[in-house]
Amino acid sequence: MATGKINVSVENIFPLIKKFLYSDHEIFLRELISNATDATLKLKHLTSIGEAKVEYGNPRIEVKIDKEGKKIHVIDQGIGMTEEEVKKYINEVAFSGAEEFLDKYKDSGKDSGIIGHFGLGFYSAFMVADKVEIISKSFKDEPAIHWTCDGSPEFDLKKGKKKDRGTEIILHIAEDSTEFLEDSRIDTLLNKYNKFMPVPIKFGTKTETLPKPEGAKEEDPAPTQEVDNIINNPNPAWTKQPADLENEDYKNFYRELYPMQFEEPLFHIHLNVDYPFNLTGILYFPRLTNDLNVQKDKIQLYQNQVFVTDNVEGIVPEFLTMLRGVIDSPDIPLNVSRSYLQADGAVKKISSYITRKVADKLSSLFKNNREDFEKKWNDIKIVIEYGMLSEEKFFEKADKFALYPTVDGNYFTFEELQEKIKGNQTDKDDKLVILYASDKEAQHSYIEAAKAKGFEVLLMDSPIIGHLMQKLETSKEKISFARVDADHLDNLIKKEDAQISKLSDEEKETLKKNLEEVIENKSYTIQLEAMDSNASPFIITEPEFLRRMKEMQQTGGGGGMFGMGSMPEMYNLIVNTNHELVGEILNTKTAKKRERLINQSLDLARLSKGLLKGEELTNFIKRSYEMVK
Amino acid sequence: MATGKINVSVENIFPLIKKFLYSDHEIFLRELISNATDATLKLKHLTSIGEAKVEYGNPRIEVKIDKEGKKIHVIDQGIGMTEEEVKKYINEVAFSGAEEFLDKYKDSGKDSGIIGHFGLGFYSAFMVADKVEIISKSFKDEPAIHWTCDGSPEFDLKKGKKKDRGTEIILHIAEDSTEFLEDSRIDTLLNKYNKFMPVPIKFGTKTETLPKPEGAKEEDPAPTQEVDNIINNPNPAWTKQPADLENEDYKNFYRELYPMQFEEPLFHIHLNVDYPFNLTGILYFPRLTNDLNVQKDKIQLYQNQVFVTDNVEGIVPEFLTMLRGVIDSPDIPLNVSRSYLQADGAVKKISSYITRKVADKLSSLFKNNREDFEKKWNDIKIVIEYGMLSEEKFFEKADKFALYPTVDGNYFTFEELQEKIKGNQTDKDDKLVILYASDKEAQHSYIEAAKAKGFEVLLMDSPIIGHLMQKLETSKEKISFARVDADHLDNLIKKEDAQISKLSDEEKETLKKNLEEVIENKSYTIQLEAMDSNASPFIITEPEFLRRMKEMQQTGGGGGMFGMGSMPEMYNLIVNTNHELVGEILNTKTAKKRERLINQSLDLARLSKGLLKGEELTNFIKRSYEMVK
Repeated sequence: MATGKINVSVENIFPLIKKFLYSDHEIFLRELISNATDATLKLKHLTSIGEAKVEYGNPRIEVKIDKEGKKIHVIDQGIGMTEEEVKKYINEVAFSGAEEFLDKYKDSGKDSGIIGHFGLGFYSAFMVADKVEIISKSFKDEPAIHWTCDGSPEFDLKKGKKKDRGTEIILHIAEDSTEFLEDSRIDTLLNKYNKFMPVPIKFGTKTETLPKPEGAKEEDPAPTQEVDNIINNPNPAWTKQPADLENEDYKNFYRELYPMQFEEPLFHIHLNVDYPFNLTGILYFPRLTNDLNVQKDKIQLYQNQVFVTDNVEGIVPEFLTMLRGVIDSPDIPLNVSRSYLQADGAVKKISSYITRKVADKLSSLFKNNREDFEKKWNDIKIVIEYGMLSEEKFFEKADKFALYPTVDGNYFTFEELQEKIKGNQTDKDDKLVILYASDKEAQHSYIEAAKAKGFEVLLMDSPIIGHLMQKLETSKEKISFARVDADHLDNLIKKEDAQISKLSDEEKETLKKNLEEVIENKSYTIQLEAMDSNASPFIITEPEFLRRMKEMQQTGGGGGMFGMGSMPEMYNLIVNTNHELVGEILNTKTAKKRERLINQSLDLARLSKGLLKGEELTNFIKRSYEMVK
Repeated sequence: MATGKINVSVENIFPLIKKFLYSDHEIFLRELISNATDATLKLKHLTSIGEAKVEYGNPRIEVKIDKEGKKIHVIDQGIGMTEEEVKKYINEVAFSGAEEFLDKYKDSGKDSGIIGHFGLGFYSAFMVADKVEIISKSFKDEPAIHWTCDGSPEFDLKKGKKKDRGTEIILHIAEDSTEFLEDSRIDTLLNKYNKFMPVPIKFGTKTETLPKPEGAKEEDPAPTQEVDNIINNPNPAWTKQPADLENEDYKNFYRELYPMQFEEPLFHIHLNVDYPFNLTGILYFPRLTNDLNVQKDKIQLYQNQVFVTDNVEGIVPEFLTMLRGVIDSPDIPLNVSRSYLQADGAVKKISSYITRKVADKLSSLFKNNREDFEKKWNDIKIVIEYGMLSEEKFFEKADKFALYPTVDGNYFTFEELQEKIKGNQTDKDDKLVILYASDKEAQHSYIEAAKAKGFEVLLMDSPIIGHLMQKLETSKEKISFARVDADHLDNLIKKEDAQISKLSDEEKETLKKNLEEVIENKSYTIQLEAMDSNASPFIITEPEFLRRMKEMQQTGGGGGMFGMGSMPEMYNLIVNTNHELVGEILNTKTAKKRERLINQSLDLARLSKGLLKGEELTNFIKRSYEMVK
């Protein structure tokens, strides 16, 4: 029938822009200031290559609110537009002016700092305004223009009266957008999107205190003056060379980024690469807690100093989203689906570059100042452990500097730990058994017992430590982890030489019968063991495997078997047949006294494991007050 | 100079659509199926008013993947398009066909179920396809058409061979979007966006088992047949009248909505209103835990049975986002900023309508089956308590049915509680003191002491309960809450009659000196009290005000004073001068024995409050084993 050209019905393009272009109307201001910045930097570039014969000077951008007139003004001192350029760039929607400009000048200087899509961004003004004016005077010797459009596709273009070079955009704010006439709202937006843009942005004025003149009296007030309020820092730290920055500069920039954050960062990593992709930035390690959930969304993504988002999912590896700071890269595609983002070659390279830089920084901190690294370990371990679990390449590097603290505050690398304990903690099957506690307070008596035998006890208290131990057990040879209360120590680290029991087999039989009569509770499996006579008479233990699986399931991320999280706790009651008190239990003839001895001993063992609670604890305390008297 | 018309440069409209129209490319399928549904319902409407003289039949929509040919087909049996209509609706981008259709037929039946923006949605196909074909035959007696476009604005329009009424869209999937050629991906999308759309949607086939024929042997396999796989339920429960639904239907619909959710909801609320706004839906109360953070994003928002989002922030009051279910309303503006959404009149009305319906439902559950309501209380209280804190109107209603459980499992409304305890728990200043515990186990001995005096002890264990108590104390007259371990009971509920101390002032002086000599620890303030001789000799208490402020600050939401969260705990040591053991301490002449008595008593008091830990606990246990022997 025919071949034709799709006709875009202009009557409907404005509602379309208003409704669909950006889901968040507030970004109109970011777009207009980006354009103004663009126009300024274009002029800078043209003067630098001699194509514009004017003085560049110290141009800036001004944002003004006229609350009474319901207007917002955005004024720049940039390149300006001639009548012809307005027709080309403004009257033709979606004409990508910046692209054409880049094409033309791309050989005359790589980084002239031009931002995306001039032209299209301008139309976002209609999301909040029902009438928009442009008053512009080009740097070329041509008359100023004055363009007006009320949101219908009809526009009006006439000569303007503007004398100075640059462009002024006037938004007549629509009824549904009057929120943007509030100083505080605009201030918030400028702070969010434009805080580090490369051209100074003025918004109102502020009062500055001047030094007192010489000879002023103490009671004289210091003189003040009104000065322009510049809301941005056009030269943020990440745009500078690391060599030009002191440690203090990094700290100051952290405070600029997070003014409400009182704590200082532990250290920083300066990112700076231009091949095979372009990326600058500074990442900070804050003091982290053991909570995996609440610390994300703190890294800010910029493109050429314009804030884009604080959601860097897919760009930064998951485990590093707990860090803070800034990443600035024009090479990260925006507005694409997450699956596309993750498949993108540049993004993949960026992600592994960042991972490598973080690993290298940690490695050099470890090597150059071990003492300081140990001090910081507790505040950064969660990131490192999470990274070791989730990124194999990071594991390989981190295995050299990841630390394993003992309950006594010594820090070992895995290799050092192996060296230290292999003599005493290798069992008869040649397996190295690493003992650990998860809570120094709650497992105190078990830790003491292990230390009494000369064993090292690690303090492993991260929420994901079970997963990490699992990984270490499978990636290293002949090692296993056991919590100090997983069994009694002679069983945890089995040696050839067995302790000799003071009791005969017959006596053991009787003892077991006695114990079972009193302890009907099915959740304890009674286990008679010939232990050191100085060890506790009764000990409650909790087998490693089940407990660890349960814990791993609670922190998620698989590992545990299905349904294991809801299994009841299983405990063993270990009775030390060599302890004096146990001998007394065996030799006591009156059932009542025996029962009292067994119950009080069991209660003490449960207390030691944190299992004596509620009514049972109240009764124990009452009984004990009686005994004190 | 001139007046003119903005010209939209068509060359740039496709990249624009691709890049900006929707940030998530996957919604192309939702848009195409919406159009197909549209076309089908339009036909239904025209046949129902006699304007289309054809058989409506049982039309459906089919989605087919041609993996080898890299194509997706979307086929409907709806109204179809003539050549003229293609020119009008397809070749003119952003021409809102549905709007014109609605205008024309708006008087002939209010709810003909037409979805938004036909025309614009179609172009979302170019987000994933580099070539799109439309083959369509109108219900009118006109030849079929075949339209092809490769993403440039050039299109090709010729006669088609299609014989059946309806439209087939063929997407030639682009290289960067081949993920959409996977059955599983499309299945997921259909399930997400189209699960409840009003026209049946076929996607592939599935095998169905038939009943065995009569006389078949047991070992014979049951016969099977291939049947169409219909992925949606065109008549979901919320589109029906409450009177037509049984309780079981609501439960079944919950399982449809959350197939991975094994637990049943506690109860539901059917929303159904058409003036002054249009809204249907079903909300469910799931079994909730005490965690405020992890249970949001479960309510789904639909518009005319098309899934829109599961983020209902701003539409449903914050405290109800913990519920689950569906809300369907064409009156909620999409793609607008949150501040605009919250200022929108219709949205405000919707939000308060939902709040009112929830309050009414809870009130009727309370009135009609108190016993059942009490059983559910623990699983729903977090929502109600949060609502009472955040919405004054909800507070007024909920104050009648909010329950206050005691540690013994009785449930009182606030009024009932007041009635029950006013005799025994009104202090000498005429203030009603409500005692509570936050943990039955940990505070057991304190609870027992309160019960021994005939006091009721509430169990208040929500994370926000401190805030709620604060609110109740300010909105009710002369009441205050005190945790059972906040002070000793005679101080918590001060009566006129004071206990008489067995000790003289001089003896008290000596006792205090003795105690202070042994207990050097500055964190205990020693306080001698003449209590019942049956009460404990030593009790550790923690003043209500500071503790509550600290807890409130930890759960956030203000209330606590600045910096209080990090203040150290403050404890009082109350010594019962009327207890036998305390008399013994006073009368013991040897310092060593006195020290032992004081230390053991203090340890027992600390144990009772959960403060004896780590090394101190280990030492206490060792000492106690010695005492057992």
